Order: sequence, then C-alpha cells, then structure tokens
Amino acid sequence: MRLRAKLLGLESGGKSVVILNKDDAEDMGVLALGRVRVGLGGRELTAIVNTTTALIGSGSIGICEEVRRALGASEGDELEVEPTPPPRSLHSIRNKLRGRKLAYGELLEIVRDVVEGNLSDIEIAAFVTALHAFGLDLDEATGLSMAMVATGNTLDLDRPLIVDKHSIGGVPGDKTTLLVVPIIAACGLTIPKSSSRAITSAAGTADRAEALMPVDLGIEEMRGVVERTNGCIVWGGSLHLAPADDLFIRVEHPLSIDPLLLPSIMSKKKAVGAKLLVVDIPCGRGAKVKTIGEADLLANDFMELGGRLGIQVRCAVTYGEQPIGYAIGPALEAREALGALMGRSAPPDLLDKAVDIAGILLDMAGRGDGRALALEALRSGRAEEKMREIIEAQGGDPEVGPEDIAIGDRRFEIRSERAGYVLWIDNASMAELARLAGCPRDKGAGILLHKKVGDRVEEGEPLFTIYAERGPKLQQAVEALEGMRAIGVGERMEMLIHEVRERALARRAVPLDR
Amino acid sequence: MRLRAKLLGLESGGKSVVILNKDDAEDMGVLALGRVRVGLGGRELTAIVNTTTALIGSGSIGICEEVRRALGASEGDELEVEPTPPPRSLHSIRNKLRGRKLAYGELLEIVRDVVEGNLSDIEIAAFVTALHAFGLDLDEATGLSMAMVATGNTLDLDRPLIVDKHSIGGVPGDKTTLLVVPIIAACGLTIPKSSSRAITSAAGTADRAEALMPVDLGIEEMRGVVERTNGCIVWGGSLHLAPADDLFIRVEHPLSIDPLLLPSIMSKKKAVGAKLLVVDIPCGRGAKVKTIGEADLLANDFMELGGRLGIQVRCAVTYGEQPIGYAIGPALEAREALGALMGRSAPPDLLDKAVDIAGILLDMAGRGDGRALALEALRSGRAEEKMREIIEAQGGDPEVGPEDIAIGDRRFEIRSERAGYVLWIDNASMAELARLAGCPRDKGAGILLHKKVGDRVEEGEPLFTIYAERGPKLQQAVEALEGMRAIGVGERMEMLIHEVRERALARRAVPLDR
Repeated sequence: MRLRAKLLGLESGGKSVVILNKDDAEDMGVLALGRVRVGLGGRELTAIVNTTTALIGSGSIGICEEVRRALGASEGDELEVEPTPPPRSLHSIRNKLRGRKLAYGELLEIVRDVVEGNLSDIEIAAFVTALHAFGLDLDEATGLSMAMVATGNTLDLDRPLIVDKHSIGGVPGDKTTLLVVPIIAACGLTIPKSSSRAITSAAGTADRAEALMPVDLGIEEMRGVVERTNGCIVWGGSLHLAPADDLFIRVEHPLSIDPLLLPSIMSKKKAVGAKLLVVDIPCGRGAKVKTIGEADLLANDFMELGGRLGIQVRCAVTYGEQPIGYAIGPALEAREALGALMGRSAPPDLLDKAVDIAGILLDMAGRGDGRALALEALRSGRAEEKMREIIEAQGGDPEVGPEDIAIGDRRFEIRSERAGYVLWIDNASMAELARLAGCPRDKGAGILLHKKVGDRVEEGEPLFTIYAERGPKLQQAVEALEGMRAIGVGERMEMLIHEVRERALARRAVPLDR
Repeated sequence: MRLRAKLLGLESGGKSVVILNKDDAEDMGVLALGRVRVGLGGRELTAIVNTTTALIGSGSIGICEEVRRALGASEGDELEVEPTPPPRSLHSIRNKLRGRKLAYGELLEIVRDVVEGNLSDIEIAAFVTALHAFGLDLDEATGLSMAMVATGNTLDLDRPLIVDKHSIGGVPGDKTTLLVVPIIAACGLTIPKSSSRAITSAAGTADRAEALMPVDLGIEEMRGVVERTNGCIVWGGSLHLAPADDLFIRVEHPLSIDPLLLPSIMSKKKAVGAKLLVVDIPCGRGAKVKTIGEADLLANDFMELGGRLGIQVRCAVTYGEQPIGYAIGPALEAREALGALMGRSAPPDLLDKAVDIAGILLDMAGRGDGRALALEALRSGRAEEKMREIIEAQGGDPEVGPEDIAIGDRRFEIRSERAGYVLWIDNASMAELARLAGCPRDKGAGILLHKKVGDRVEEGEPLFTIYAERGPKLQQAVEALEGMRAIGVGERMEMLIHEVRERALARRAVPLDR
C-alpha cells in the first residue's frame, strides 16, 4: 500500500513508530502495535503501528522523527507500506511469559531489539515483568549480561589488572566512591569507574563528581584519563556501555521492580574489562536490602554471576540505616569528600567505609594488608594528590578547595523539639527533602546533618540544615517537613511504631539508582 | 510551573498524555511516565508525562487531543502544571507484581483508571502480565468481573429469566450463535446476545450477523429489540458493557496472553443480567483448548465464577478440530446459517452443535427435553420466523434469502493432488487464508470447503474455494498457499509430523477473539 508521509514532528524514544488510519490498517490486516515495513527510495525499516480514526486520514501515514530521519522522508512523500511479522524476539518474550528459560541467542535478540527500538513499550514492560515474576536463573543472568555487553561499547585497556567497585545504592550521602577511586589508583591499580546520575535519589556519584570536574566524557576521553592517572570518575550515560540498561530502567521505574539489577551492574563491569570487583550492599532499615540474610543471598548471586563472567567478586555488606557522613546533595557531598581526602574533617563512618572497601580490593589484588595500605594512601595525602590528577585529566581545576564549591545560599535550620539521643534518621525522608530543595539538578541544594544516630541533642539544638539555590524550592522542602518523620529524638525507642486505622496503602519503593 | 500549550494534533488512545521538555520535567522532579496536574481556567486533569530534548522547547507543553478537549485549550494558552503522585491504583498494580492478592476495591480502582485513561501502556501491560504470571484466584476473578461491570453500561430488562450463550472461540466458521439465538427466543426465553467482531479470526459473530442486518446498536436500541422479539444479535462494541475489556485486549494481543478471559466474558453476561449461561469450549488440535482435561478445568472455573456472580453456568466441551460447517467468512457464513434455519442444506455438525447448545439452555430453564425442543423449533420453521423478526427489529430486511447476501466474485479453487481421505483440516491455516483474502473487512471474502474430515476425495477433486472481493487480496491468499499445509489427504495418518533441523521458533498463538 502506498501512503503519503505526514511528519508528526515528535520523537518516540528511539522507537520507529508510525500512525495509520484505522481503515488503512484494517485493509492491510495490521492491528495496533503490529508492524509494517516502510520504504522510500532504497531505504526501508520496520515500524510499530499505532492507529487512529481521526487526524491521520486514509491514504496518509504519520511518521515520527526517528522514521523521518532513517528514511530521509519529507512531508507528502509517497511511502511503500506493507505488513510484516513482529521481530523474532517477540516470540522469545512470549516464551518467557510462559515461564520458559531463554537461551543466550534469544536474550541477545531481545536486548538488540530493545536497543534498536524494535519493541514497543508494552512488549518491553511484559518482558521485564515476566523476568520479575518468573525470575531469571544464573544462565539467563549470564546471558543477559553478555547480551548487554555485546550491544554496547567496551573499554579495551592495555592493563594487566583492572578493578572496580560498585554500590547497589539506596543510602543518601554515600560519597564513598569519591574516596575509593583515588585511594585505589594511588596504590597502582587501574580503576575505570563509570557512575550514574540520580534517578530517584538526591545525588548519584556522577552528580557528586561533577561538582569537582567534568564527568560527561566519551569513551575515548575516558580511556585517556585512565591511561594517564590509573583512574577516573565519569558519567556512564555518554559511554554507551550496556545502553539497554537505561531503556529497561525507563520501564522498571514506574513499576518499582528491578529484575535486571545484577545483569545491569555486571554488564557494565564486564564492558570496562574489570577482573576484580567489590560490591557494596548497604543493609538495614531504610536501605534497599533490609536484612543481613537477604544481603548475603544477593552477595552470593553477585559472586556466582561474576564467576561466570570472569570477574572475581567480593561483597561488602555495610551499615545503611542512616546517611553516610553529614552531607547530602551534589555540592555538599563533593565538599565533604574533598575535605576528607585533604585530611580535614573526615566523618568517621565515611572514612571507615572508604578504607574498608578499598582495603578489600587491595587484598584481592594480593597487595597484603589492604585496609592498612588504603588508610596509609589516605593519611599520606597520596589519595588527595591522585584525586587532583584525575580532576585535572578530566578537565577540572586541580587546585580546587572545598570552599570553592558553590552551595545554595537559601537555608533553613531544623531544631530539635526535645532533648534526648538521635534514635534514627529516615533515609527516604532525607532523600525526599533534598530532592524537593532542588537536588540533583540544583547542585548546591541538599542537607547538612548536624547530628547522627546516637548523638546527644538538647532541646532547641540544630538537627540539620536544608540548602537550596532557589527560594521556592526551599519553601517546598520546608512545607514537606510538616508531618514528615525525618529524625527521631528521644531517650529510648518508643514501642508503638504506627497505628493502622484503615486499609493501609503499602508503598514499598524500589530505588532504581544502582 | 506555567507552560504554554502546544497542540500535538494527535490522539493517545483515550489517555491524557503531555510532552514536557526534559529540563522542565527535571526542574519539577518529574520522570518520564510520571504524572502532572494540568490546569486551565477552572478545569484540571492528571496527565501522563513523556519527555523530549527536542521539538518541545523549555517553557512549552505538548498536549494530545484528549487533554486539549478536556481543558478546552488552544495553542499558546498558559497552563498551570504541577507534579502529582501516580494514581493509587498503581500501588495496587505494584502489589500484584509482588504476588499479593488484590481486593475488590483495589481491582475497581485499577479497572476504573484503565477505562478513564489514567494508566500508561507500561502499567497496564505490567498488570496484565502479573495476572498472567501469578494467576488470579476465584476472589480476584469475581472482583475483576464486578469491577468491569461497575465501570460499564448494564442492560436492565424487566424479564423473569434471561439466558445467554458464549463460545470461547478459536474455530473458523463457527456460526452456531446465528442458530441458537432464534431457537431460544422462539422457545420463549430471553436471550440478549452481544457479540464481538473478529480480532485475529476470519469472522466474529457480529461480523457474520452484519451480513444479515445492522448490528451496531446502542444499548437502548438493543433493549427495544429484545423486548419485542426475546432476542437480538448485536455488536458489543457500542454497548459499553465492560468497556475495560477492549483496553486490556489491546495490550494482551501483542503478548499472546489472555489472563482476563474469564472475567471478561462473565462481566458481559452479568451486565446483560443473564441468569443461565452455556459456555461452548471447542477442544482439540487447532482449537484454543487442546485436551479434554484442560477443557474440563476451564469449565470448572466458569461454573465457579458463575456461582459467585449469580449466574448458573453449564459448559459444552465441543469437537473443535476442523471448521464448523463448510463456510468461513462473514457473508458465506451468514448464507450457510440462514440456509440452515430455512431447512435447506444444513451441515450436520452445525445443526448438531446448535441443537446441543440450545438444548442445554432449555434443559437448564426446566423446559423438559431441551434437545428435542430445540430441534422441533428448527424443524418447524419457528426459529427461521424468529430470526426474521429479529432481523426486522434490528433494521434489516426480513425477507432476505441466502442468495441475496453478496459474496466475493474473485475465486480460486484448490484441488487435491492425490486420492484418499481428508485426514485433517488446519484451523489456523484456514483462518489465515480467509484473512489474507480480505476477511473480516471484506464481508464477501472467505473460504468454502467442499470436503470435511473423513470425506473421500479423488485426485483433482476440489477441496475448497477461496473467495475475495478484490483481485490483489485473492492473489495474496493464493500466494500464501505455497508451503502451507492447510488440508491433509491420504489413506492414513503419516508417522512423521515434522522434522526439527535447527532451533525451533515456538509460535503458540493465543487467539483473543472470545
């Protein structure tokens, strides 16, 4: 069937989408979300069909920007449109929906079609939901990891030993990576660290690092930095290591499920050539993983999958019931991390965690007493020096001091209404307040804690300060304080946690920041 | 945030969708597929957010036709846009994703939000997939059925006993309903039959009936016909009985899953007030249900769910391994059914099936020997007379004869390449050929079988004829014959069914025509 192109002037998220009049679609026997081959001149592609009864008349075909670009089509061009079967990968998705185990070849077809925009949102959502509901075994996790590597860039460094660290995330203020990377690089190991930006949290490692230096590097620039300094801290988004991940996350987020956690993380480590890896699993109330038992099971999964992928993995199950250090928000955290590297005010929990994790990596690399080496790298100033090398190599100012990093000048201090001990700090509330104040977009927004769990506090003493760059954002955060239970102060834990009066709405959030 | 409306000039399938520039979305802290409240003047609504980096600039908001209409917005209007949490129903969907059982109130919220366009395709796909993967128990099936009734129209007839029949479909040429409805109405029971059009089959009952009379009636017109004649055969699409069903089917179809089969069917029966119901479950190779054991389990489910809904159900497990009668396609089937009612050439399988099913309904209604009564209604011409009353009441020509129904004049006869017996007829191939020839859109297209399973055939004798209204469609069907195994002829079944040489692509189709 020959149809006249009507340019929609809209992008459809990398997918090739066309809109047909319902009459034309019926005439071709194509249903909504079916496929057509669309051709113009020598070019052709397969597009996903939407149908309409209005707006696109019979004889016309609405095409999104992706299709316009691929075909080089102009308004009114006559396109050749023919029904075509769905991609083979859809049959594999349907098989997974029946609980069948998928082989590597099938997973590769699915992941490739996700990356190339050949599957509809409905089909991707069903695949992700089926993985969640039926689970994926070790073979499938391995296959998915390899498929995600095969459909993205890889970093081929000519180094004997490449190491990496990863945190599954979920704890506000966790700037540990900003310390671990320079410690490890200063000790002579190669650590090409790629990090993510915040999705639902106040700051991702890429956001924190960006307060110190450019992080938006291409893969060749990344290679240059690592070859010069042994390390880097860059944003993963422009590297296209396992690009399928972002496309899966887009679907997983509204559903609050995360069946691809392991393949997603491990594929990126495989893509940079890591041989040794430490995975930080923060654990406890308010963390992603609530119990030590659960954390150990997840650790086993990481280690087994690592074994299949040729990556030796150890896990650090860490205390995750309150923010790490005192600062939350990109700039505030960058200040705190830089201060810690410089031997100024280092919060003991941040210092411990960084030295523990770096120590495990150094142990794994056979460098003897890893923790002692890590502490020595930090104490001696070698880690700071290395960080400044990395900052310079990535295009930042190597002389930067903590006070050079701009933070928000709109502030609101929250004081304790009673005396006692800080009994708990709610991670989710802290992340929410920081986001309302402007994080992660406003780098200077965030929260500075004045007290942590176990600290003595007097009535009227400051508990924390909210920072914002813009007045309305500060106001938004301050308004949200009302009725929020962010920090608990008392002489001892109260017995009644909460009362349920009517049908409770179970809101279990799954933070997808990995 | 105040943003200027940019009209997209596109419909989004009943959903309220807006497109924000990524910067504006980030500034509000809204992710793709999150929600915003959009207001103009006194009107406001909740819309699903898509984001773009191009085409919609910062400061503008792209709005689909649904949003334009609801707000009465014009190009350039300043809209008030604020982030808002997702609907409560999304929390329930997430709970189902964790395998939790949902209560009626939760299911009602989900179904209502599906009908009102408050849930994205991804969210609906995840819900349907979770129902498929985790299953739904009797309570949930009841709740979903009631929720689908509550969100649609109901037919409130002032009749003591309303009965209904339903086939789960899957067998080509099944025009049984065109006989059962007039038989039952002629026997004095009330049967307000609503039917569907073909989705993936060659003809739905609504398509068949439309070759005889208008079927596109509103619910009040339907009531009028039933009050006058005791019966009707109308298309369900304009009645808005359980309108959620079509929205679920749209998602289920590309995934080839059908977890809502039972609630979907039963909700429509409940909505017309049926008290007695026969469900036809065609069974066997090439049917939806392959084994008698499976059919019996499904029958139990129908009966149990019926009990919960106050509908007494019996099931007819019927032979479904070949088409019913000789005709496939709307007009050809209408001709065959009308001929059978008129006592002309009635194929014995069609006659048997109609009389069996009508007989069960009459039995259930306590009318004594139901099968005998049904046969008598048919033989005496009372069923034909009743059919003509219904045709007239629905606005058709009551004098219509089989030869008045136009059939396609492009024809192609397929002859047997060898002598023997017809061993099998492949339902899927027959449906595919009929669709390629133009069914269901071209009413006169289809297939006329000359032989059925068990019939003796000589070399060169005609097996079936393909009918089409348009030459290219006929050609398309004829081309597809190549390599298709539509009818098996031989002295006895061959032992080798097929050889698997490379990874087989398991294509298990789930016809959604219910």
